[in-house]
Amino acid sequence: MDRYVNGKKTRMTPRRSSTRLESKELTRRALIRAALKLLSQNSFDSLSLREVTREAGVSPTAFYRHFDDMEELGLVLVEESFGSLGAMLKDARSQPAFDTDTIKRSLAVVVMHMHNHTPHFRFIARERYGGVRRLRRAINRELQLFADELAIDLVAMPHVAQWTTEDRRMLAGLLTETIIRMVAELLETGPDEEQEIVERTKCQLRLITLGVPAWNGRLRSTRV
Amino acid sequence: MDRYVNGKKTRMTPRRSSTRLESKELTRRALIRAALKLLSQNSFDSLSLREVTREAGVSPTAFYRHFDDMEELGLVLVEESFGSLGAMLKDARSQPAFDTDTIKRSLAVVVMHMHNHTPHFRFIARERYGGVRRLRRAINRELQLFADELAIDLVAMPHVAQWTTEDRRMLAGLLTETIIRMVAELLETGPDEEQEIVERTKCQLRLITLGVPAWNGRLRSTRV
Repeated sequence: MDRYVNGKKTRMTPRRSSTRLESKELTRRALIRAALKLLSQNSFDSLSLREVTREAGVSPTAFYRHFDDMEELGLVLVEESFGSLGAMLKDARSQPAFDTDTIKRSLAVVVMHMHNHTPHFRFIARERYGGVRRLRRAINRELQLFADELAIDLVAMPHVAQWTTEDRRMLAGLLTETIIRMVAELLETGPDEEQEIVERTKCQLRLITLGVPAWNGRLRSTRV
Repeated sequence: MDRYVNGKKTRMTPRRSSTRLESKELTRRALIRAALKLLSQNSFDSLSLREVTREAGVSPTAFYRHFDDMEELGLVLVEESFGSLGAMLKDARSQPAFDTDTIKRSLAVVVMHMHNHTPHFRFIARERYGGVRRLRRAINRELQLFADELAIDLVAMPHVAQWTTEDRRMLAGLLTETIIRMVAELLETGPDEEQEIVERTKCQLRLITLGVPAWNGRLRSTRV
């Protein structure tokens, strides 16, 4: 057998009926789960391959059957973290108008997703500015994709249809970052403060949208 | 002598005239400088005391004459990072009105400060959501102080004088976070992109202030 057991027999032993492919997938999942668990406390560049394999109950050699190196495991975590969120947010703002209802729905989706994927979100919040350049880049690329999609959807917002692409991206970036900051703050605090933080973020998003009708373009801003 | 030299004699040897106190301060500075250098690549929790002392050219034992542990060194870095910035920002917004000039001046101060203290800023950006709880807390406390001071100053802004303290804090938080995000982005990118990022941030701050006259309080927002 590929794997060795290391006192975690129950968790690691595949069901009798499992094929070799299933068993391989189980090991892969065990490695990912082990990494996520360790990353809830530590930053990625402080984590060694050996710690991950020990936590997963597999041999260091087995690790390389699944990932080239720790960075590849990190990139898989980035991919997983953003996987379903995009589609859900797209749904949340599928309404033609970007109004207070859309804000409320989008935040609810993000918060729910955060609760269902806390270790992933914590990993993203930490590694966005963490010590591993490839991970920072991958995370920022994904976040940029969000902002770009939002910038396109914002055309549906009154006034914004007439804006330049650049200004729409400016607005989308501000909205996206405000939501990211909320998530990062929620991850740092207890459930007692959740409602207050979400309410404050709703207010901030609403304040931003209130500025939209008064916006008179970037040209003037370059003279600021 | 307390310190040992480890091939970095020139840098570590105090001037002949230096007193024991000056020599002690030199060692302390060497440890701080060494940590900052290593932290420009790595996150704090991946850094060992031994790496810092090796980089500084002092013995591990000597470290403990200056700091109880690595976390204390980290807290000193947090303190240093925020040291002069507060006063400079206070100056920048000393005008009675919070207008586009104030935005421009404040951003210029932050960007200049960032260029003069890049390793400190990078450390703050990374450890704000990093793997060491005490550092996260210390950093967020300092940032909260900024936001609170700004919230007080915002009374001078037209319309805001009539706002509740809670709403003023909501606005101050949004402005502060937008500036922090700019800094984090600048640290990730090259000088080519600096002007574009600063311009975009100016626009974002101006858009937020444009929403201010239309703001009608948090009460309504709780129904959002």
